[in-house]
Amino acid sequence: MATIQDVAKHAHVGVGTVSRVLSGNGYVKQETRDRIQQAIDELDYTPNQMARNLFFSRSQIVAVIVPEVGHPFFAQFVSAVEAALCEKGYQTMICNTYYEKNYELRYLDLLKQKRVDGIIFGAHTTQDISRYKDIKRPIVALDRDLGEDIPCVMADHELGGRMAAEALIRSGCQNVLQIGSTETTDKVVTPSHIRYKVFAEVMEAHHIPCRTLEGKWPTADAAFYQKEAKDLLLRFPDIDGFFATDMMVVAMLCAALAQGKRVPKELKLVAYDGTYYIGAAYPQITAVVQPIAQLAEKAVQLVVGQIEGDPAGEKSVRLPVSLCLGDTTARE
Amino acid sequence: MATIQDVAKHAHVGVGTVSRVLSGNGYVKQETRDRIQQAIDELDYTPNQMARNLFFSRSQIVAVIVPEVGHPFFAQFVSAVEAALCEKGYQTMICNTYYEKNYELRYLDLLKQKRVDGIIFGAHTTQDISRYKDIKRPIVALDRDLGEDIPCVMADHELGGRMAAEALIRSGCQNVLQIGSTETTDKVVTPSHIRYKVFAEVMEAHHIPCRTLEGKWPTADAAFYQKEAKDLLLRFPDIDGFFATDMMVVAMLCAALAQGKRVPKELKLVAYDGTYYIGAAYPQITAVVQPIAQLAEKAVQLVVGQIEGDPAGEKSVRLPVSLCLGDTTARE
Repeated sequence: MATIQDVAKHAHVGVGTVSRVLSGNGYVKQETRDRIQQAIDELDYTPNQMARNLFFSRSQIVAVIVPEVGHPFFAQFVSAVEAALCEKGYQTMICNTYYEKNYELRYLDLLKQKRVDGIIFGAHTTQDISRYKDIKRPIVALDRDLGEDIPCVMADHELGGRMAAEALIRSGCQNVLQIGSTETTDKVVTPSHIRYKVFAEVMEAHHIPCRTLEGKWPTADAAFYQKEAKDLLLRFPDIDGFFATDMMVVAMLCAALAQGKRVPKELKLVAYDGTYYIGAAYPQITAVVQPIAQLAEKAVQLVVGQIEGDPAGEKSVRLPVSLCLGDTTARE
Repeated sequence: MATIQDVAKHAHVGVGTVSRVLSGNGYVKQETRDRIQQAIDELDYTPNQMARNLFFSRSQIVAVIVPEVGHPFFAQFVSAVEAALCEKGYQTMICNTYYEKNYELRYLDLLKQKRVDGIIFGAHTTQDISRYKDIKRPIVALDRDLGEDIPCVMADHELGGRMAAEALIRSGCQNVLQIGSTETTDKVVTPSHIRYKVFAEVMEAHHIPCRTLEGKWPTADAAFYQKEAKDLLLRFPDIDGFFATDMMVVAMLCAALAQGKRVPKELKLVAYDGTYYIGAAYPQITAVVQPIAQLAEKAVQLVVGQIEGDPAGEKSVRLPVSLCLGDTTARE
């Protein structure tokens, strides 16, 4: 099998010149390029991936940083990211931050050391985003504003919050509770927080009392949500509408049914995310569905675009959400 | 900060000699070793990780190959593997095989090229395991017999099948159905298949009719299971006991409730795996719980042991399962 040395010899140039042509980096005269191309054709040379990586100084690895791979939303997201990266010839490295701030920064170091070619940030822990600013390497954020140089992929959470509120209002809710992170000092505010704000605004416009309680960071611990749901029903026995993310809403449904509450007659529920997790519940839960696979594909497209030097990459992408009507709200 | 060059100069040896001492590979005279150690101490030299990796020719990456990261069992497994690897200083690379046979072999190549230091195989696609035989590199299998040189980590599926059968028998089942892969020509038989065999044997010993139907490979597609459950109830309206993996059993519970069947009175259910997914169901499902976190920790311990040259590694590990009683069988 022909090697890059063979190609260089055949074209009467140095190996470095062949490498520059292969990698597309650095200037090489058109005449020389043609000679190299001819040598490549005549020798039937295929640069092997390892060699390509060495020339490109690429690892062909993209890291995906999420709070917890085990959480249904991130499990689906990471799975779709891996599939999309694989198709483009990249391996996927994963990292659970488990809400440890240091992990994010550790991965920035891996990026600087060229041990990974790019990062998709789906974790939201480090408040200090100044270190992202000047890194000038391929990064894409999921639901996170990391400064104007770093593209952000997100769902249309404003639309999502509105859809959820309107589904509960149409079902006749008079007293609603939503669980969502709101601005506090030690947490990072992400574009996804807008849904809680919009939800509360829509309720207010309709003069419907609406409480917003601070939720925990997403965890994959079903028992945690079950306990939380029981507590909430004790504290707020009079609510007739409830809005939160999938695992919390599913737990609320189970707790309500266990208490003999009729759903949706006495309690209406809308879940946010629409992961496969709500497929486990009966009756079927009404949900605002994030386009997880498309978010993943877009994130991959943008990070690989940066890695491979595509100058026309978008800066921020917002994808629409959809409402999937189940039996925990009124059917239209 | 001192570099390896500084150490070499200080000890009057070549960089290669320092490298041999640091990596523990190759012979270096004791006197020279002592001089190098002294230089390291005097210069307060800490080999940085990148440099160490180059000497050791390690990537500090372990790949985890699973059918689909999005599936609850594998999401929990991969998440726990990442946490355990991270603690030992390794990054986690993931790969969904989506049941493509080629992926397994592709990762064997990454291993040979030293782009990953080890592999945890949780996918079960390639029948031809001869390529694993002589690879002599760090590999650990989850629920898979890859030959006597490759350690296998698994749950005690024999015990699990027995527990499930006995829970249904104690609940008074007279006509049971289990969904499980059985031996067919184009599939890989794994140690986990023993549970179906044992389940059927226990039923037979109690003279209880038991059908075993071939299941699909695990997928994270809730809609698939919902359709399957409806079809099964149509085809087998007379069953009063059902045993399958989590997603299938949850779907069966939903389908039965939608038909107005009383659970557990008319239909008893036992799920296998006990992932967080069954936490979404009401009433609570009785489950044989695999020790997923411990399986992950054991797999990591065995693969890192091989990477770091621990000769005392175990060959095969079988961890106990437990029965978590819910409300889909009789309470004891």
